[in-house]
Amino acid sequence: RADGARLWATILETAAFGGTPAGGINRLTLSAEDGRVRDWFRDACEAAGLTVTVDALGTQYAVRPGRDMSRPPISFGSHLDTQPTGGKFDGVLGVLAGLEVMRSLNDAGLETEAPLMVVNWTNEEGSRFAPAMMASAAYAGDFTTDEILSKRDAAGITVAEALDAIGYRGAEDVGARAIGAFVELHIEQGPILEAEGKTIGVVEGGQGIMWFDGLITGFESHAGTTPMPRRRDALLALSEFALAAERIALAHAPSAVATIGEAQILAPSRNVVPGRVAFTVDVRDPRSPALDAMETSLREAATEIAERRRLEIALTRIWRKEPVPFDPAIVAAVDAAAESLGHARRRIISGAGHDACNLAAKVPTAMIFVPCKDGVSHNESESATPGDCAAGADVLLQTVLRLANA
Amino acid sequence: RADGARLWATILETAAFGGTPAGGINRLTLSAEDGRVRDWFRDACEAAGLTVTVDALGTQYAVRPGRDMSRPPISFGSHLDTQPTGGKFDGVLGVLAGLEVMRSLNDAGLETEAPLMVVNWTNEEGSRFAPAMMASAAYAGDFTTDEILSKRDAAGITVAEALDAIGYRGAEDVGARAIGAFVELHIEQGPILEAEGKTIGVVEGGQGIMWFDGLITGFESHAGTTPMPRRRDALLALSEFALAAERIALAHAPSAVATIGEAQILAPSRNVVPGRVAFTVDVRDPRSPALDAMETSLREAATEIAERRRLEIALTRIWRKEPVPFDPAIVAAVDAAAESLGHARRRIISGAGHDACNLAAKVPTAMIFVPCKDGVSHNESESATPGDCAAGADVLLQTVLRLANA
Ligand SMILES: NC(=O)NCCC(=O)O
Ligand SMILES: NC(=O)NCCC(=O)O
Repeated sequence: RADGARLWATILETAAFGGTPAGGINRLTLSAEDGRVRDWFRDACEAAGLTVTVDALGTQYAVRPGRDMSRPPISFGSHLDTQPTGGKFDGVLGVLAGLEVMRSLNDAGLETEAPLMVVNWTNEEGSRFAPAMMASAAYAGDFTTDEILSKRDAAGITVAEALDAIGYRGAEDVGARAIGAFVELHIEQGPILEAEGKTIGVVEGGQGIMWFDGLITGFESHAGTTPMPRRRDALLALSEFALAAERIALAHAPSAVATIGEAQILAPSRNVVPGRVAFTVDVRDPRSPALDAMETSLREAATEIAERRRLEIALTRIWRKEPVPFDPAIVAAVDAAAESLGHARRRIISGAGHDACNLAAKVPTAMIFVPCKDGVSHNESESATPGDCAAGADVLLQTVLRLANA
Repeated sequence: RADGARLWATILETAAFGGTPAGGINRLTLSAEDGRVRDWFRDACEAAGLTVTVDALGTQYAVRPGRDMSRPPISFGSHLDTQPTGGKFDGVLGVLAGLEVMRSLNDAGLETEAPLMVVNWTNEEGSRFAPAMMASAAYAGDFTTDEILSKRDAAGITVAEALDAIGYRGAEDVGARAIGAFVELHIEQGPILEAEGKTIGVVEGGQGIMWFDGLITGFESHAGTTPMPRRRDALLALSEFALAAERIALAHAPSAVATIGEAQILAPSRNVVPGRVAFTVDVRDPRSPALDAMETSLREAATEIAERRRLEIALTRIWRKEPVPFDPAIVAAVDAAAESLGHARRRIISGAGHDACNLAAKVPTAMIFVPCKDGVSHNESESATPGDCAAGADVLLQTVLRLANA
């Protein structure tokens, strides 16, 4: 069993890096705060006797030797970056529970057959740099390292520059290191486990995701003198498009979701009819054909609105991640571990993207979910109980032992 | 007659202060660029023999003596600040034509009975600091000087600090200086004169204006895991409100307009359902009861949307400017001047707010409009012909001579 109290203490301790007055964390990837929590994690891993290395995209790997060093390490972890309005658990739980697994094995004096490795993946959140989960995607071969290094944030800073700024551009080639299996513990970020009174979600896969960049080009004009019918108002076009996206997602209920998370009037002024609006769209569904259908509907809506309002709407798909099934053997190992510990559990599909979804293409992978309050995540009020976090760490520990000693 | 070629040259010369690649001007009030054009204007006025002073809100007054110095000066002018996507004529024409009137009288060796004064009012545009036309409002007694000095821009900088930064916090008390009459030349900023082939608009008044600050408070949540019906999406609420504002303005057609010129998601992220959106509303109509009715409708719409979407919408009216009738005698003087010059003309109501609309409460006031291309303003492509600008300066000169020598 893991030490739930020690795990909880590390969650509270690291929440100070980027902690907000409302009790959340604002720790965007590769920010100064992210640098500080990375340093803390490296020091804690080294104090636990692990060997820590960093790859060219900043991902941290901390290895505990096994009896058979010819086997690739059984691996686990998640991410320490957060959303601007992030909570204390999203990603953090998976990394710190991984550290706790190592500490508990040390305390118990237990050696494993395969080596073990806890990983902190760079930029899981995708808030500062798109797409989300970019380091694990590069590990899995979906992008080259150079492609990722040249991505820019809203201020024009590249991933390469941001890595250098905090000293986390490591020497190791991305994807060079073999991984035997990957298990990610995470809060559910949705309402299902809580509603059904289950402690553990045995995650069978992740839904598909599409990200778009949009730009509406109308015409700036005077708010006092431009008659309503003559306007080419980019914000009104965005408004119609946002409501269309909501209708399109509802038409694929209950599984589909669509979100406009960013929208910015360029050169805004109170008394100027908005001429240009940049925005993003996030669309998800567990069914690949539903993604296709929603993209078609969104493009049709954009075309109709643009024609009627005499403006241009450009919609560029910058990312598509297909729905991912996890490895049945690893899913079964999670299930068996949860059963052996007597936890109420259910099979579940992840609504969020996770590094595990990228790893799954290259490595036998699965995930463990624990409940979070009201299903709320990406919010400073995100909350999970010490008991559920400890239960998740126990299931992680038992799953890892099964896999490493098999 | 004014020297139209010289006027045109000064328009092009000063357009360099804050000039944009697209041929417009981005010269927000009290910016460094605004400081530079003010210095240019002061030097040009002094070179024309005028005495230049600055009041406590930065407004510049340049006086040409008359034979009867006991009479308050017949005054004219406008503003040299612009919108972020401003053109070369809005405000600028009125100030530079005022300078041209002074230069032309000097060239002709003409003295007037009353003294003359050209004025450059601070912050007419209202883009950096709200409300618009704030220095002329303080002159007319609608606000105290201290109220205006403490207004803040989006970066938290006060008017007082911004004035100090460019050295334009003058010694003269705001409103202390008597004005005999005020005449403002301006581009129409609307399509009517051009459509009817008229050169001069004899402006009879300005419509009413209301400005609101809005804040929508929903709930940030995960874009991938929050089912559509559980969301409290502040951007979708704004979208419905923006479309409701459009419908409400159309219901008061053809005179009413409503505009959401600024809208900002707070802590935006691609994969976060927007939790908070701040926005502005600009509502106008020449009829005061229509303003009342539109405010009621906007508040009803906000309440209905907030209830249905389970979030809060706060709508604060930060400014209301009643419709303003200009002084019949000054309107008649403009009309007579235009007639004497043989210009095709029509009576017109201003859709934009102007410093003249504030002055009208304290001083006999009227305005002169000239056409602008396609009625477009607050846009970098704003355009007026040299001939129309010269015609406007001629009418200004003749109106001023009538008033000063009466
Ligand atoms: N787990 C998580 O919130 N990941 C962020 C990527 C996404 O699903 O939007
Ligand atoms: N003339 C002009 O554009 N003034 C700005 C104030 C307003 O009408 O919005």
